[in-house]
Amino acid sequence: MKSKTEYLTFNTNTRRAYINITPDVRKIVEGSKIKEGLCLVNAMHITASIFINDNESGLHEDFDIWLERAAPHAPTDRYKHNETGEDNADAHLKRQIMGREVVVAITKGKLDFGPWEQIFYGEFDGRRDKRVLVKVIGE
Amino acid sequence: MKSKTEYLTFNTNTRRAYINITPDVRKIVEGSKIKEGLCLVNAMHITASIFINDNESGLHEDFDIWLERAAPHAPTDRYKHNETGEDNADAHLKRQIMGREVVVAITKGKLDFGPWEQIFYGEFDGRRDKRVLVKVIGE
Amino acid sequence: MKSKTEYLTFNTNTRRAYINITPDVRKIVEGSKIKEGLCLVNAMHITASIFINDNESGLHEDFDIWLERAAPHAPTDRYKHNETGEDNADAHLKRQIMGREVVVAITKGKLDFGPWEQIFYGEFDGRRDKRVLVKVIGE
Repeated sequence: MKSKTEYLTFNTNTRRAYINITPDVRKIVEGSKIKEGLCLVNAMHITASIFINDNESGLHEDFDIWLERAAPHAPTDRYKHNETGEDNADAHLKRQIMGREVVVAITKGKLDFGPWEQIFYGEFDGRRDKRVLVKVIGE
Repeated sequence: MKSKTEYLTFNTNTRRAYINITPDVRKIVEGSKIKEGLCLVNAMHITASIFINDNESGLHEDFDIWLERAAPHAPTDRYKHNETGEDNADAHLKRQIMGREVVVAITKGKLDFGPWEQIFYGEFDGRRDKRVLVKVIGE
Repeated sequence: MKSKTEYLTFNTNTRRAYINITPDVRKIVEGSKIKEGLCLVNAMHITASIFINDNESGLHEDFDIWLERAAPHAPTDRYKHNETGEDNADAHLKRQIMGREVVVAITKGKLDFGPWEQIFYGEFDGRRDKRVLVKVIGE
């Protein structure tokens, strides 16, 4: 069994953002020389998500409005977590809906994707360095 | 390390549907001859889900009503994504709640399941061919 | 390829609970002697979750209030599933938001975690023995 581990770092200008990281992941998979296996991609911070969905900016606006309705940022004192001095409880909740990680099949050396699958980094409490782990295992 | 990759195709009569695919996945796992490993099952389309829950039709009705309340299909013009000519923005959102994939342990050659675990294909924008990937790795 | 499979059992006093199981998983990973690989941790019951988030009790209260608003326990007759004699339809729904499983990278023999990542067992229908599966594969 072979494996390859790499880390990506993101620092968004805005509190929330949706970034297509498929090219980064693809490069790591191809560099691994693994032909058959699994690729794990996960946020290493608990106020961010990795998810697979459509690369369409209107949909990302829909996600953003929908998540803000499901777990509003303000008023920040509605959350117990924010009594610790944080203001990001909503980001911890939004991340649960969107998920921490994806596991993608590697087949014949490539991400084995359907026609529209793209991997996104979802940021819900940005404006600082945050990391994403990519691990490929297989043969 | 051994691996086995197969694809299942679904075409539902209705926009939304919940289909028990456990027998299909079991057959692939048993055919792989892998005794210890992991089985990834994922929707290859971004308006469908793979999830594990109870094989009980009343619960599936509950899921359907609950998801429709969380991300209503109509009015379709409430979503930016639908300005592209699509009418399925709600399906992209519903799929985030229900998830893209499951990873199941293979132990002694079988899906290592609790008493009620069953694998479902959740369709949120059906009436056309859509694929599911099953990948088993291990030894 | 090496693998290790273990099962943890939980029996909470309350219907809902959030338990930090990171020490249990860490012990299994270190006992496996696997240096590079993946660790799957999943609830084996369909009214419980495994998720990764912050070890902060205020946030767990926020999760609990938020999930109860998203899928209320009562009135129990609002759910079709409860016509079977169960009263836990809400728990099946809550588990979909919080997720069934996590997959964690093992790097240099350790859980490859960001600074705040901790693994939790989320119970939504407790007061009886329920199991969690931990499977490590790698080399």
